[in-house]
Amino acid sequence: MPTPSRRDLANAIRFLAIDAVQAANSGHPGMPMGMADIAEVLWNDYLSHNPANPGWFNRDRFVLSNGHGSMLQYALLHLSGYDLSIEDLKQFRQLESRTPGHPENFMTPGVETTTGPLGQGLANAVGMALAEKLLAQRFNRPEHAIVDHRTWVFMGDGCLMEGISHEAASLAGTWGLNKLVAFWDDNHISIDGDTAGWFTDDTPARFEAYGWNVVRGVDGHDADAIKRAIDEALLSSDKPTLLCCRTTIGYGSPKKAGSESSHGSPLGADEIVATRKALGWEHGAFEIPDEIYEGWRVGGVGRFREDQWNEAFDNYATRFPLEAAELVRRSHGELPDDFAEAADAFIAKLQADGPVIASRKASQNAIEAFAPHLPELVGGSADLAGSNLTLWSGSKSVTGDDRDANYIYYGVREFAMTAISNGLSVHGGFIPYDATFLVFSDYARNAVRMSALMGARAIHVYTHDSIGLGEDGPTHQPIEHLASLRYIPNNDVWRPCDAVESAVAWKAAIERADGPSCLVFSRQNLDHQPRDNAQLGDIARGGYVLRDGGADPELILIATGSEVGLAMKAAEELGDAVRVVSMPSTDVFDRQDEEYRESVLPRGCRKRVAIEAGVSDFWAKYVGLDGAVIGIDTFGASAPADKLFPHFGFTVDHVVRAARALG
Amino acid sequence: MPTPSRRDLANAIRFLAIDAVQAANSGHPGMPMGMADIAEVLWNDYLSHNPANPGWFNRDRFVLSNGHGSMLQYALLHLSGYDLSIEDLKQFRQLESRTPGHPENFMTPGVETTTGPLGQGLANAVGMALAEKLLAQRFNRPEHAIVDHRTWVFMGDGCLMEGISHEAASLAGTWGLNKLVAFWDDNHISIDGDTAGWFTDDTPARFEAYGWNVVRGVDGHDADAIKRAIDEALLSSDKPTLLCCRTTIGYGSPKKAGSESSHGSPLGADEIVATRKALGWEHGAFEIPDEIYEGWRVGGVGRFREDQWNEAFDNYATRFPLEAAELVRRSHGELPDDFAEAADAFIAKLQADGPVIASRKASQNAIEAFAPHLPELVGGSADLAGSNLTLWSGSKSVTGDDRDANYIYYGVREFAMTAISNGLSVHGGFIPYDATFLVFSDYARNAVRMSALMGARAIHVYTHDSIGLGEDGPTHQPIEHLASLRYIPNNDVWRPCDAVESAVAWKAAIERADGPSCLVFSRQNLDHQPRDNAQLGDIARGGYVLRDGGADPELILIATGSEVGLAMKAAEELGDAVRVVSMPSTDVFDRQDEEYRESVLPRGCRKRVAIEAGVSDFWAKYVGLDGAVIGIDTFGASAPADKLFPHFGFTVDHVVRAARALG
Repeated sequence: MPTPSRRDLANAIRFLAIDAVQAANSGHPGMPMGMADIAEVLWNDYLSHNPANPGWFNRDRFVLSNGHGSMLQYALLHLSGYDLSIEDLKQFRQLESRTPGHPENFMTPGVETTTGPLGQGLANAVGMALAEKLLAQRFNRPEHAIVDHRTWVFMGDGCLMEGISHEAASLAGTWGLNKLVAFWDDNHISIDGDTAGWFTDDTPARFEAYGWNVVRGVDGHDADAIKRAIDEALLSSDKPTLLCCRTTIGYGSPKKAGSESSHGSPLGADEIVATRKALGWEHGAFEIPDEIYEGWRVGGVGRFREDQWNEAFDNYATRFPLEAAELVRRSHGELPDDFAEAADAFIAKLQADGPVIASRKASQNAIEAFAPHLPELVGGSADLAGSNLTLWSGSKSVTGDDRDANYIYYGVREFAMTAISNGLSVHGGFIPYDATFLVFSDYARNAVRMSALMGARAIHVYTHDSIGLGEDGPTHQPIEHLASLRYIPNNDVWRPCDAVESAVAWKAAIERADGPSCLVFSRQNLDHQPRDNAQLGDIARGGYVLRDGGADPELILIATGSEVGLAMKAAEELGDAVRVVSMPSTDVFDRQDEEYRESVLPRGCRKRVAIEAGVSDFWAKYVGLDGAVIGIDTFGASAPADKLFPHFGFTVDHVVRAARALG
Repeated sequence: MPTPSRRDLANAIRFLAIDAVQAANSGHPGMPMGMADIAEVLWNDYLSHNPANPGWFNRDRFVLSNGHGSMLQYALLHLSGYDLSIEDLKQFRQLESRTPGHPENFMTPGVETTTGPLGQGLANAVGMALAEKLLAQRFNRPEHAIVDHRTWVFMGDGCLMEGISHEAASLAGTWGLNKLVAFWDDNHISIDGDTAGWFTDDTPARFEAYGWNVVRGVDGHDADAIKRAIDEALLSSDKPTLLCCRTTIGYGSPKKAGSESSHGSPLGADEIVATRKALGWEHGAFEIPDEIYEGWRVGGVGRFREDQWNEAFDNYATRFPLEAAELVRRSHGELPDDFAEAADAFIAKLQADGPVIASRKASQNAIEAFAPHLPELVGGSADLAGSNLTLWSGSKSVTGDDRDANYIYYGVREFAMTAISNGLSVHGGFIPYDATFLVFSDYARNAVRMSALMGARAIHVYTHDSIGLGEDGPTHQPIEHLASLRYIPNNDVWRPCDAVESAVAWKAAIERADGPSCLVFSRQNLDHQPRDNAQLGDIARGGYVLRDGGADPELILIATGSEVGLAMKAAEELGDAVRVVSMPSTDVFDRQDEEYRESVLPRGCRKRVAIEAGVSDFWAKYVGLDGAVIGIDTFGASAPADKLFPHFGFTVDHVVRAARALG
């Protein structure tokens, strides 16, 4: 084989995608065939990365927002020398393979973020580009640009139709993220066919309206045109860039190119033969000639830069040892040595002081106490700073160029906010928090799910946690949200009952390295609860005995958040043999060993009443068929909170009657 | 008092808002003060409505997408003569009043849709404008423009930051909804302060990119300028119009105008005095002089048009009696007389034929069978027509001007799709359905909630209901979604086990006039289940005995959807005394009388195993602490479905072992 042309290098992507989809009898060949030429130019001429070390901190980030084209990414990783073998590619979409249907950052080396749910990859990329900007502001010094990399994102028409693309692109424009470069795969095709019937936006004009640098009319099958466009993007000093790349979906397939039929199904054996012929690719399935591998593995300007960087970093570390140590610590996701102790001291003091405040205020106090120890804590709110209480005395907006910038005014953009948190988290160097009213977690829901799926340390703060928010009424009052968030696998939901539990929840969320936490806080004041040291320590176990009721309680009241105070009062009335279990996190409690769980909820005691201002059925898992739940199974109502709680049955009298009715 | 000026009329809105918020000590005065002048011009000079009959079918629709400004709408309704008294206004935000914190269409005459969750009002309005367009296409005849009204929407910066505004505005542009006019309250303020820090879009350019007619730079406090702008909107023949109205939030308040401090809190007694002085309003709280009422109740060109229309409709009915009867029937939300019978016949035939097909295919067959009876059935999919199987032989795209247009290519816009369904539903004349993969119900979740809160008949179709979708992997595999959707109050979720249950679910959803239904279907084929007539009839009760197991069963297996077939096979192995309950809708089952529920799940039988490929804890409500659940409490995985079901424990053997382990 003669020296392969750029097109040959790109065709290697195409046929790996075609053949893997065919072998799996499932998958999406059309996008990899359409974007192969763009990908080849980007990866071989621009991408700064080290296939031998996917964890190199200053690598460029590459995000495939149109994640159904996963075989494009797997082919790129394989061809450029990542630890992803041809055997891995043959296992495309098979159980436990490293090449699942959509890119999963926890399955495949070199995959930065999990994509598939459209539009979120773009928002993740905005988060990564923001991470780079903030780290550069904090750590770079004159002649020491130790943090200096780009974020590249591929996205399709589907990503751009999704609402989250609006939120994310708008923020990227406002923030002037010039190191973010997005390639729009403008192929005029989505699953239902020609997009003329449902996607008539003038997308370049739209992105210019967001303050982006837009390069129109790039021929996505012409390597030179692609290079010119990327070079133009590199010149942008204050704006993110959108490259509008005109491509043909399923490029090379005689019968399916330019048609939705190439999108989500194998091409079929005959069409594969025809495509091989049309593109002059004479190699068998999964056969890549050595020359092609060589073409992919030598000469790229963007490869093997890590050595260079390591040297630069050593110089930096000599000059700026504290900064270097902090960057290393943060890049490894490690907390400062003094964090746990300082947090525990704060918590102990709270237990002693016993403030009677709203848990949202307690949350702010916890941030105020913990954030000075944690320069990696960056966060904000979706235009509810004064309600969510997410600002602290050290907050500095990321819109400036402050070295300590750590606060994000997200505007009213819950979904992008949450997906940007995910981007900040998987980039590394940050523990992001975001905030809105609990009811509007709905707007961000799939991004919360993606935090959990990715195992991203992201902290989602939700205030105004129940009918207790009062007058704003049922559109603003969560009912099903607590239960629904708890049901997301690998998501830890906390609903603390007082300032002490609030601080413990924050500590747990910060320390949880392998997944998100949702911290749910009240608008209204909550009583302080007395605890001995053992109880104080057990809060972190998710559920614990707050009022003992003796070794063999007659009745157990289980409650969370604002209903714990009510449970304690009802227990007083019900008598000494009544136990109260505070259950700030069912997720964490359910992970405790059986002995502990049994010690809190002894199997023998079936007289159990759960109390929570949310859907009652969730609590059947603890009270069973013989217990009772005081919950809410309708929508709320607009009225002052002190009218709503009795209206919905949250009174001592009602709890007492429900408990006694158990016989 | 001399003849009141336009400003006086507008000030009546301002002070009703100011005083009601002050009385409630809660609410949002800033927006009503800012938009009062616009509202006054619109309502007095343009809005075609009849305050004496809020249900007049051809009225203009008015939507307050920035619903926190509810007092603006209540003031308008009161001043223009709707059945909303000054006493009602004094009860603002009090329990069970007709003036709740945010506008609720089920509480207040003249409120078209429930708003508050930002951006959704705009999408509802797009749905209403589409409804008008489609009804006009179907019913109007030359010289008989019997359906002819506009949709007006107020929206703030918050609505425009939300992603759903992108999805909804894009579709409105594509559809050329020229009778939709949106007023952007461009006041440069959102809750966190000056929007310069987080909202830098060039919004007019953005909307032009969507194909809208944009009128820039309207002075929102100058009645003449507002009139000129609206007149310009009325000239648009093929585009929706955005009027960019520059306003001052809290207009008239000396200390708080132009500041976020006027947004969400009472002005305070002193500032109210100062505002009265500044605006020259000498009347007490809730005092509206007669002259002001007269100014609001006479002379507006847009009022009391119903009589005129009724006459025109009578003429139309004489010429086109069938069309007139259909329009009346549909406007009342009544089904055709023959629907139930035809549906039952179809269902009975299915039971006899016993097709073994995917329930998504069964869903399509049900649409094919029912839609010819239901010209009001309009629907579509978020770019998944061929996967959701939402097209039927009579589908005709709404993008043309076909009289029978009934199919909506939504593109990849789940959230706007669902909120547009809500708009179509509350407009009247339609039963909308929409569709996506079950996992992406997340993207639309708050709109599903709003369907339920409003009691809107909207049918949300979700296919690819479990790990059974296979290779697309965990990003596409629902786990928590069934449970989470069931927990939304007033939402009926159905997960049918075969073609028969699928048709029953569709029938129930169509017949349910007071709330939404989520119909959840499989990608893969499902067995047909045998039933006698009584069983066939009981499907509609949400849960029923599919296999009897004798009068006193030893064990009950409860299952839904694809797991019902598994339960039946396991029961065969477990023996004669094992009952199988098919539970396609827990929501509907839970509404049955106790006697029926007891007959299906006899209290005495505690050996119960629930089987569903979703979170297990949901089923504790039926199996209690003594039963077992075979569910999935982790994320799924990418692999062929026939590998995934055994991997996650969905085998006869596992069910049998779990059942026997109950002792």
